[in-house]
Amino acid sequence: MKTKAAEEYVQIDDTTFAPFPAPFAHGGVTWRLLHASPEAATWSAIFQCPAGSSFASHVHAGPGEYFLHSGRMDVRGGKAAGGETAVAPGYGFESSGSRHDHTFFPVESSFYMSFSGPLVFIDENDAVIAVIGWQEAQDAWQAHLDALKAAA
Amino acid sequence: MKTKAAEEYVQIDDTTFAPFPAPFAHGGVTWRLLHASPEAATWSAIFQCPAGSSFASHVHAGPGEYFLHSGRMDVRGGKAAGGETAVAPGYGFESSGSRHDHTFFPVESSFYMSFSGPLVFIDENDAVIAVIGWQEAQDAWQAHLDALKAAA
Amino acid sequence: MKTKAAEEYVQIDDTTFAPFPAPFAHGGVTWRLLHASPEAATWSAIFQCPAGSSFASHVHAGPGEYFLHSGRMDVRGGKAAGGETAVAPGYGFESSGSRHDHTFFPVESSFYMSFSGPLVFIDENDAVIAVIGWQEAQDAWQAHLDALKAAA
Amino acid sequence: MKTKAAEEYVQIDDTTFAPFPAPFAHGGVTWRLLHASPEAATWSAIFQCPAGSSFASHVHAGPGEYFLHSGRMDVRGGKAAGGETAVAPGYGFESSGSRHDHTFFPVESSFYMSFSGPLVFIDENDAVIAVIGWQEAQDAWQAHLDALKAAA
Repeated sequence: MKTKAAEEYVQIDDTTFAPFPAPFAHGGVTWRLLHASPEAATWSAIFQCPAGSSFASHVHAGPGEYFLHSGRMDVRGGKAAGGETAVAPGYGFESSGSRHDHTFFPVESSFYMSFSGPLVFIDENDAVIAVIGWQEAQDAWQAHLDALKAAA
Repeated sequence: MKTKAAEEYVQIDDTTFAPFPAPFAHGGVTWRLLHASPEAATWSAIFQCPAGSSFASHVHAGPGEYFLHSGRMDVRGGKAAGGETAVAPGYGFESSGSRHDHTFFPVESSFYMSFSGPLVFIDENDAVIAVIGWQEAQDAWQAHLDALKAAA
Repeated sequence: MKTKAAEEYVQIDDTTFAPFPAPFAHGGVTWRLLHASPEAATWSAIFQCPAGSSFASHVHAGPGEYFLHSGRMDVRGGKAAGGETAVAPGYGFESSGSRHDHTFFPVESSFYMSFSGPLVFIDENDAVIAVIGWQEAQDAWQAHLDALKAAA
Repeated sequence: MKTKAAEEYVQIDDTTFAPFPAPFAHGGVTWRLLHASPEAATWSAIFQCPAGSSFASHVHAGPGEYFLHSGRMDVRGGKAAGGETAVAPGYGFESSGSRHDHTFFPVESSFYMSFSGPLVFIDENDAVIAVIGWQEAQDAWQAHLDALKAAA
């Protein structure tokens, strides 16, 4: 028989953020994993994005929701290009199949996002370069924690 | 054939918040609906909670995730009572079956939360007083918008 | 860190079915739980329904999908009443908020169904009599297994 | 405001099945799409598998559940190889991250399956050859229906 999943709480603390590396992001984006539900294939994270930083082209395999709590985020090219320009505090729903060719942060920004299923990162020919779901996110996050520990 | 769900963006604006009324909350909690996915039975909202406000007893039928971006929230009685005390910025996962007998805000606070499935509000004898899912939340939110429009 | 959820397999065997009791069903419905995902609040079961059996009024809090592999099922009153009459092999999607006042089996039937979130059983005045999700389903199933063991 | 998703019913009829082509399957597998929920990124289908047919290597990005209602299915190599051998009637839960290098049908078989998120088909070097979710499944199914109509 299964037991109720545990409640979880994460105190968000600037010192533990990890680099979100190229080719997936540029300009110094950092992140931390907040939660993963392997049974549901969902995961949540928070991202810190310096002015001028960006995420590389990706498709949301499942729906994702963000809450931008500081700064400004140009999604799908920003409003000027037919996409969205989020200004904190702002909320967005990115549906399954949404393609984000360029997510750009004109000013220092931070957002929380929950994901159902993986992000599919693609190159300029639309070839898949990585499928990043809860497992890959958790592996990357654990590697960061291990490196912090080794350096301490 | 089905079409891709639309992307959505909500600019969060203090003027549009609605009261989250008794018997579900006390002390002046206000909220706004940010999103509902009828196909998935998920919904998301943001809540503003004055110092001393609280939510009444409820059970999370499905998992919920919160991001507390300002203030402080005592969940399941707070840390002193074996629950959790969230301090902004903080993240929490409340699992399916989590019972929140008293969620209390000692200082002015605000949090974003996404819900899968309904909240089941219960009275002091554990009898169900309301099952609040995306439909009920949306109906309440629409009534607020209609009242705002009628008053304008 | 979380680990991948286990794969599961259930060999369906007629000897282990449990009664699905009144007031939730009538006429000898039996069932067995096949799976529960506490993190996702989803669950799956198979039901055997004698000719003339039925389920009592309930609302699907979240989406449910059925595969009727034998027999015939009148859903939401059947086609004659504006609902659906499923004839094996048939598939149905019951959306979040679907209300099933009378699900009736004119001939011996069997169906598999997966549920996201709870079923809310209601009485003739629409008052909630039970909220049955993965936890309540699992508790009932476990009680059946325990009774079988005690009787052996 | 959003409206409740529609209920759906599909009468399963042998004449409408489509080939599930190489390199994704071998030996004459046919299928039909039963449902897609774009908001949730979930989809459901039924598969008919002749004796000797098989599916090529794939990873389940999200959880999947199958109900084998006729025949026999060797999953993850079958029981002899540490996987599972399903015999109808049998149910299986394949968790997010499950890798199916060879799913084989020793006898004519049929199963229903629901999917959350995409299947990631991979080649012998683990390179991604296709990411197949609700949209790709629906596109393939629509192409089949269009070809049937054109041929009529």
